[in-house]
Amino acid sequence: MRIDIISAVPELLDSPLNYSIIKRAKEKGLVEIVVHNLREYTTNKHRRVDDYAFGFSAGMVLQIEPVDRIISLLKSERNYDDVIYTSPDGEKFNQKMANNLSMAGNLIILCGHYKGIDHRIREHLITKEITVGDYVLTGGELPAAIMTDAIVRLIPGAIGDEQSALSDSFQDNLLAPPVYTRPAEYKGWKVPDILLSGHQAKVDEWNHQQSVERTKRLRPDLLE
Amino acid sequence: MRIDIISAVPELLDSPLNYSIIKRAKEKGLVEIVVHNLREYTTNKHRRVDDYAFGFSAGMVLQIEPVDRIISLLKSERNYDDVIYTSPDGEKFNQKMANNLSMAGNLIILCGHYKGIDHRIREHLITKEITVGDYVLTGGELPAAIMTDAIVRLIPGAIGDEQSALSDSFQDNLLAPPVYTRPAEYKGWKVPDILLSGHQAKVDEWNHQQSVERTKRLRPDLLE
Repeated sequence: MRIDIISAVPELLDSPLNYSIIKRAKEKGLVEIVVHNLREYTTNKHRRVDDYAFGFSAGMVLQIEPVDRIISLLKSERNYDDVIYTSPDGEKFNQKMANNLSMAGNLIILCGHYKGIDHRIREHLITKEITVGDYVLTGGELPAAIMTDAIVRLIPGAIGDEQSALSDSFQDNLLAPPVYTRPAEYKGWKVPDILLSGHQAKVDEWNHQQSVERTKRLRPDLLE
Repeated sequence: MRIDIISAVPELLDSPLNYSIIKRAKEKGLVEIVVHNLREYTTNKHRRVDDYAFGFSAGMVLQIEPVDRIISLLKSERNYDDVIYTSPDGEKFNQKMANNLSMAGNLIILCGHYKGIDHRIREHLITKEITVGDYVLTGGELPAAIMTDAIVRLIPGAIGDEQSALSDSFQDNLLAPPVYTRPAEYKGWKVPDILLSGHQAKVDEWNHQQSVERTKRLRPDLLE
């Protein structure tokens, strides 16, 4: 799998893409992640990639020319499953979408300016608009990092213990049960006895009950 | 405002917190952001901060001791409005919550391990659990960066043009209208004539109509 991320502020992505699971997945050859600096694709001598909006008073808008140039270049080199733009208007990113995207061959993710990108980019160059949540951010870089993290960790081999991903919240539409580790008692706060009992079947049953109870109480929408 | 972020992988946060709006807000003295390496608060000689879960087969769990130690230290130094944990079980982060949190004095954000943290931390030390979306990530660092970005840019003075934040998507429960910038025509793709007309009142009306139409079509839930 290959993920190309296009950004006007690529420095923002330095650390999120170079530690932990993503770093290991790259080292294992499971994924190639290439960050492109949009400013290298402008013909403007000041390397500006945004300009004032037509008929709109506030905020700068990402221009179509450099974006078209880099996307056209990438498409001439290989086929892409999707050209994704992170936008509040988009389909909501969730675990199911992460599962689907983790099976893609190649993806492009365009990071927007927070105020927006020229709408013609969205009409003519983007194939999928995705939002990671209902909040406004400075740019699309953190959403791109979120999507990349959620997708890459689902590639078989990316996390050490495959079982671990299967028991995550959302994989079965249930929240995860509460988890505890050593020490068994801390400041008088105790781990539930059942978890120390050694009866795996009872532990499994307790975990499932806790998952269902927590989901009903905290996120009933997941059960609909 | 001060935001303390506690992480076992603080390197992940290097670049998201040191560029663009957040960098400028720090330079202007509008916000202080301090990242704490959880490994510095363990008494374990290997600086381990996680251990195997009791009665649960897969995944490592963040231990309560180092977390309690750093949170207690911070609380002894100043008062905090909230101690936030980023968890799929939590209340959903949205623009309204970002608005509220941007008025806080001091916040602690604890970044979880993706598999979880000892539940006693959540019961005894955390005051607010927040999720940025229904997907599983390697850790809480990207959600912490997302929240910090969304909050900091709302602090008065953080972004240059105050008008700009007011016209963002969600601030009035409407998606933003489409935006366009130069050139007016690219590869035969044209900017709508109305935006080039110079009639500000008509432009404003068009923008509002587009916002309403896009919201009805793409995110009718926002209008409920």
